[in-house]
This record gives sequence, C-alpha cells and structure tokens, in this order.
Amino acid sequence: MSHENRQFRLAARPVGLPKASDWEYVKTPARPPEEGEVLIAVEYLSLDPAMRGWMNEGKSYIPPVKLGEVMRALGVGKIIESRAEGFASGDYVSAATGIQSFATLKVKELTKIDPKLAPLPVYLNILGMTGMTAYFGLLDVGEPKEGETVVVSGAAGAVGATVGQIAKIKGCRVVGIAGGPEKCAFLVNELGFDAAVDYKAGDLRKPLKEACPNGIDVYFDNVGGEILDTCLALITLHARIVICGAISQYNNTTPVKGPANYLSLLVNRARMQGMVVFDYADRYGLAAREMAGWMAHGKLKGKEDIVEGLETFPETLLKLFSGDNFGKLILKVA
Amino acid sequence: MSHENRQFRLAARPVGLPKASDWEYVKTPARPPEEGEVLIAVEYLSLDPAMRGWMNEGKSYIPPVKLGEVMRALGVGKIIESRAEGFASGDYVSAATGIQSFATLKVKELTKIDPKLAPLPVYLNILGMTGMTAYFGLLDVGEPKEGETVVVSGAAGAVGATVGQIAKIKGCRVVGIAGGPEKCAFLVNELGFDAAVDYKAGDLRKPLKEACPNGIDVYFDNVGGEILDTCLALITLHARIVICGAISQYNNTTPVKGPANYLSLLVNRARMQGMVVFDYADRYGLAAREMAGWMAHGKLKGKEDIVEGLETFPETLLKLFSGDNFGKLILKVA
Repeated sequence: MSHENRQFRLAARPVGLPKASDWEYVKTPARPPEEGEVLIAVEYLSLDPAMRGWMNEGKSYIPPVKLGEVMRALGVGKIIESRAEGFASGDYVSAATGIQSFATLKVKELTKIDPKLAPLPVYLNILGMTGMTAYFGLLDVGEPKEGETVVVSGAAGAVGATVGQIAKIKGCRVVGIAGGPEKCAFLVNELGFDAAVDYKAGDLRKPLKEACPNGIDVYFDNVGGEILDTCLALITLHARIVICGAISQYNNTTPVKGPANYLSLLVNRARMQGMVVFDYADRYGLAAREMAGWMAHGKLKGKEDIVEGLETFPETLLKLFSGDNFGKLILKVA
Repeated sequence: MSHENRQFRLAARPVGLPKASDWEYVKTPARPPEEGEVLIAVEYLSLDPAMRGWMNEGKSYIPPVKLGEVMRALGVGKIIESRAEGFASGDYVSAATGIQSFATLKVKELTKIDPKLAPLPVYLNILGMTGMTAYFGLLDVGEPKEGETVVVSGAAGAVGATVGQIAKIKGCRVVGIAGGPEKCAFLVNELGFDAAVDYKAGDLRKPLKEACPNGIDVYFDNVGGEILDTCLALITLHARIVICGAISQYNNTTPVKGPANYLSLLVNRARMQGMVVFDYADRYGLAAREMAGWMAHGKLKGKEDIVEGLETFPETLLKLFSGDNFGKLILKVA
C-alpha cells in the first residue's frame, strides 16, 4: 500500500512576505511507519502567524525550519497504519504534522483527539494551540481582574477572539481592535465584546480612549507596531501588557519598530511580558476541559476560516498578513 | 530675624537640555514658619536625572513643576526655627526642599535624620531616594537569584553603583556599563563588580556578550536607547528588565527611541517592568537599616560627587546628562 504524499518544503528564506518561489511543492511516496510510529492521513492544517518566524534563520524559541524541510505546521488527521501500541488505525490525533497530506510520526509526538466531542477543526482552534495561547497568555501573564478593562489586538483573529471571550467570562470590560466594520460588528454582536475599534478607520487613539474610559488594565498584543504604541499611552497604573505576537512586524525588511512609548511602563509601574504557549504544556489538558465547558454552555465560540486544498497553501498563508482572514485560518487538505 | 532665601525657579519648559534662560534666580526673604511648620537652612541638595522629567508638561507619575515655582529637589538641612511639636531647632531633616537655601515646610513633609550616624550627603545617596530606588528596583522588580548575571547601565551613577553592589551582596555576577575607562576601573576595583564595559569604546554588544557568557538574567536600565536594545538581545529565558530611567532620552527633541529588540521578551518569555521609588515608602525604613548595616560592614560604598555653590545649579545639573558626574551628584548650598 503506497500513498502519494504532497508536501510543501521551505525552498528559500523569505525576504518580506513569503513568495511562491520560497516553497517547493513535492510529490513523494509516504514513508511507511517503523516500530513505534504511525502513518497519518492529514485532514486539516493550522496556519498561524508564528509560522513566519519559523522561516527565519537564527535563534528563537524553537529552531527555524531548515531549507529543504517540510514546512512546520500543526495538523489533525486519522491514523491509517499503526506500528505503535495504544494507537490504532482509525484513531484521530493532533500533531506537528507539517504542511503535507501524510505524516509518519512517533507516538510521543501525538495527542489523541475525539471527533465525536468536537469537529476536527476545533482541535486546531479553541481546543488547540490557539486556544491554549489565548488562555494562558491572558490568565497567567495578563492576570485580569473582574471589572478591569482588557484590550486585545488582532481581535477577530483566532487568538484574539478567544482572548476577548475569556476576558468577558472573567468579568472584564473587553475592547477589541480589528480591521474593518464587519469584523468589529462581529466582535460586539456575535462574541459579546463591549466595544470594538477599527484600526483601519483612521486615528486609533481617540476611539480607543473613548472605548476605555478608565484606561487599559490589560493589553494583549498580537500585532506590535503603532497599535502597541497607542495602547502603551493609555495604560493604567500597574497595567500588564502581554506580548504574544507582532504580526505587523513579521514581514519587515527594515528593523522592527520598537515601542516609542515604552516609558509609560515606568510612569505606570506597568509590565510588558512575553509568552510562548509551549511553556504551559503540562496544563493543556486542564485548560482544554475548562474551555470545552465554556463552549458547551455557549460562552465561548470559535470561528474557523477554512480554505480547501493543500495546494493553495502559499497564497492562503498570506491571508494572515493582509488582514483578510476572519477567524482561525485552517487549510483543509483533501 | 530674616533670612535671604536664594531660589532657582522654573522660568520656561526646556526644549532639549535645560538652558540658563529656563531658570530664574531669585533672592527673597525666607517665609517664617506658621503653626505646624519649620524653617530649614538647606545644606545639601540632590541632583537627579528624574528632575528633567519633572520640568516637562503633561501627565507623569507626579505633577510637573509649574512655571514660576521653585524647582523641585530633595535636600537635607538643619531646622533653624520650629513651630511644630517634636521638631526642634538644631534637628536635621531630609525633605523635598526644592532648589533654594531656605525651605519652610510642614512637619508631615519631613524625615528626621541623624548626622552622627552618617554624613549628611549619604542621606541623599544610599540612605536616601537613590539607595531606595536601587534597593527596591533591583530586589522587588528585578528579583535576582544567587548565581544569576545582573547587568546595570549608568553603573557609575548613584543608582547604578548601588544596584551593582547589592547584586554582589546577593551572590550575583555583576557587570556594569559605564562611560570611560576611569569609571569602569572604579566599578571593578573599588566596588567589586565582576566586569565593566565602556559604552564609549565602540561597539557594546561584543564586549558585553563576553562579560556575560551565560546571558543577562536581570538588566537594570537607567539609560534606555541603544544600550537597552543591546541588552535585550542578550537576555536569558525568563529574564527581568527593570525600567528605572532612560537618561539617554530625557533631552530628546525627537521622539523617544523605542527598543527595537523588544520581541526578545517574547522569545525569552521575559518581562520588562517600570518602577517608581515612591511606591515603596512604607518600607524605606527597613531598607535603610539593611543598607546601613551593609555600609558598616564595608560591603556597600557610596560615592558622592559634591559641587559647591547653589548658584552653580544650572550648569551642575547638566553634568548628569553629559555623563560627566561620577557618583551621586550633590549640590552643597553654602
């Protein structure tokens, strides 16, 4: 039994936005599993802003993807051949499968998932790294208290939408920053945010200040750049800024724009702290159970933006950086 | 009995470095104390980088000095007339006297000091706000652990020199960043720093990296700008950056330079946190006792840079910003 595996490999380190020529599309037989391994038919792949960082050379929180390697990505799929105890054909798993239609992986790399409890894409969104990032970033690093004002940027993105809803569950006033009236209406009308500010509508400071009459106690930053600077100017005493990402800066070919208003941290005795979700791996299970409960009670909604066709990967990925995606961006392989 | 009070009042809000014309030098009779007040003959005045911020308009951690007001400053002096219980002529006190030779103040603004326990200038240095800033900034915000590497900028300045010595007492490897070989030699030879790096000697990154072979666990920032950025690039996992000041940016007429390497906070799950010493007022007494003990045992040394003559204030203040001062800058009034 041989399966044709379709893969996207990193062909060149992108300068600015990833181009078609930065990828090599390869068809190759899927490698049969060895002892302790399984062969997975990948069904859905998670496309995340962090992937842009993994394409760059140099030290970061995980090693970069090497040139010629299959592009790193999280995925979910069905085991179609198992040579490992405890995993059978037909079991569903999530794993760092990479951008390919088949993945041969060791069992220690797998997490079993139950497609009867939630649709598969949810395991790449709220019940996956996206949800974990929102949960631990907001609760462990942001430490919101009831009645405080929480602002989140990239609010219509996968992490941002989850951050805002968790902050509402915790009794905070929640303000989202997103691009365009449709996304802003969604945040307020569908997700229950108290307000949303459209960063594309012109000056951000004035509407954000109006939406946060008592200032910003917690700012969850997914974007960096001017938006981070504007929020820094509005923080309260002892505010907490969570640095989760900086999507506005990932494709820079010029140096990153540092936050010119960082001295607001001094004036306000505030802190700015970075987070990487992998640090919380020992508590993923607890968080997933709590979030599944919120979902079951209708307090937490996921929105997935599913694009069909593995072969669309190079252009689909770019939706993350143009602000075109709306909800968790997922690639359906088949 | 009338005393001629010499005062420097803020005449204009400085643009860039404060100029002579930003001050008004006034001779006026000292105001006699009313009930609950004392009249103080000011002997020494503390000149601090923070004063530059107090001259600017706009919201900060304390209100700006108003135009026409005596310039705010901490001082020590002798009570020469008292109409307040518990304070007698001849008592020594520290207080926010302002840049003047006589100050008439309410007793709630005074702290009694003992000139037999330590020379008066020490109450403006290690036993004053300078020492408190170093103590609480390093220990409460920086949270250094034994064996960690602590880097401090402005290391030959009053706060920096104290930070480094406290970090040594706590069992850390201590690296100071200072300007010029004389200051660097002083840090290593006189204060026991493990290494010192001269930021005026060219590229900072290479020698700093060599001085910190295991990276920077705690960075105590007094200067901002390029030095903050260089340190950000060298921090370790879970590092802590204390934002105490940004002397390189205080006289900017262009926007503050934000730290372009701030995403190192994300990669390293590190935090950057501002501090203002006034928040720790309820623990000043404890800190002063502990530091007095360290001084008595020769573990903590103060260095004061005392300039004589109240009338030299405008030009003496500028020593802080040119890097010309060496130790705690103090103005002797008489």
